[in-house]
Amino acid sequence: MEKESLFFDGNEKQFFQTDDPEQVIIHFKDAITAFGNVKKAALADKGKVNCSISSLIFDFLKKNGIDTHYIARVGEREQLCRKISIIPLEVIVYNYISGPLSVKLGLEEGMKPGSTIYDLRYNNAELGDPIINASQAVALGLLNKEEIESILDTAKQINSLLFAVFEKAGLKLVDMKLEFGRASTGEIILSDEISPDTCRIWDAETDEKLDKDRFRFDLGYIVASYSKVYEKLSKVLE
Amino acid sequence: MEKESLFFDGNEKQFFQTDDPEQVIIHFKDAITAFGNVKKAALADKGKVNCSISSLIFDFLKKNGIDTHYIARVGEREQLCRKISIIPLEVIVYNYISGPLSVKLGLEEGMKPGSTIYDLRYNNAELGDPIINASQAVALGLLNKEEIESILDTAKQINSLLFAVFEKAGLKLVDMKLEFGRASTGEIILSDEISPDTCRIWDAETDEKLDKDRFRFDLGYIVASYSKVYEKLSKVLE
Repeated sequence: MEKESLFFDGNEKQFFQTDDPEQVIIHFKDAITAFGNVKKAALADKGKVNCSISSLIFDFLKKNGIDTHYIARVGEREQLCRKISIIPLEVIVYNYISGPLSVKLGLEEGMKPGSTIYDLRYNNAELGDPIINASQAVALGLLNKEEIESILDTAKQINSLLFAVFEKAGLKLVDMKLEFGRASTGEIILSDEISPDTCRIWDAETDEKLDKDRFRFDLGYIVASYSKVYEKLSKVLE
Repeated sequence: MEKESLFFDGNEKQFFQTDDPEQVIIHFKDAITAFGNVKKAALADKGKVNCSISSLIFDFLKKNGIDTHYIARVGEREQLCRKISIIPLEVIVYNYISGPLSVKLGLEEGMKPGSTIYDLRYNNAELGDPIINASQAVALGLLNKEEIESILDTAKQINSLLFAVFEKAGLKLVDMKLEFGRASTGEIILSDEISPDTCRIWDAETDEKLDKDRFRFDLGYIVASYSKVYEKLSKVLE
């Protein structure tokens, strides 16, 4: 499968056509962005490490029956994936209270709620990517009620699978953002990536942050921390 | 039943003990407040009109099988009610896109969504009364999952009943805020008031606003508009 023309150059990933109209190659850049693309940098090897982590995780999810866009890793920083139509709705799963949710609810970061928290975010930069709920997502015409229930159910399954794997690897999966897309055949499948750019991940023993919060809050050792996540996960997943 | 000591002096209502520890008298003041108590005024007879409207509506809901705190109107601006413990969670029901939701979702005010939208707001002034979802309300320990499903189901019933009545009265029930409380016997019942202070209500023919938005946005004729709501509703409910 050869890379053909670039058709979308995103903040952190590039999307290339292939000779199969149903398949794309996704290239992980070294760019890192935060706060709605306000803070930006390039960090050597970040794209390679994230491609490694996300490929490991998507391989594992596929083996466990989750339908995803991921087909195979085809390069150090490249994945072959099914082409999907983006659904502008993120599912955020919180196993622990973290980030802006901590401020919003007045609960301490790191607290474990009695049950998992799910949030929906409408991916619309013009509106500031607002947090919405299922009835609003339906009103916006993003998905119908059954489809939203279905992606929330899939998010729950993914979280159960990954929470256990991260735990076994000595990591806390604090929170995680999932994106879904519609395949040309109509079904809704997991897309995007799962990496320290899209999750909060802490060392299980020390609570050291090993994710994009290191970039957001200038904590340093960003790629080293991402690499630590890769090493720990690869021991239990490879 | 006699009013005894004032035990809570709210922004727009006062709460008095009675000689029955399970019952309170709620007095509707003429005060009106908006934007988290930043904008305030007193409008002659506002309390009387709201007491009239809310009594009409709660009487109607009681007759239709909704459990509420309301026992009887006992004065021009006074209701005898069951004493409840406040649950700091509001249910907001949108039949039409309105107010801040219009800005958040980028949808035009007055648009009718394909299905009713429900929002939950955590009543916590220190946190700015954030909009939350059911899984967050559970994590905050406000109610358990079944209780939240139950109040959302009750909100749906109330909305069906009132939407039809308002329609018959030539009014659009655009949106509505509901509050619930826990009775000493443990059950969760509708509390607070339902009035132009807690709903957005438009004239069905002209879309003229007949609610607190007149105060929020300095549209004038506030009590006159509230009175119009009372007149229209009383024709179908009395």
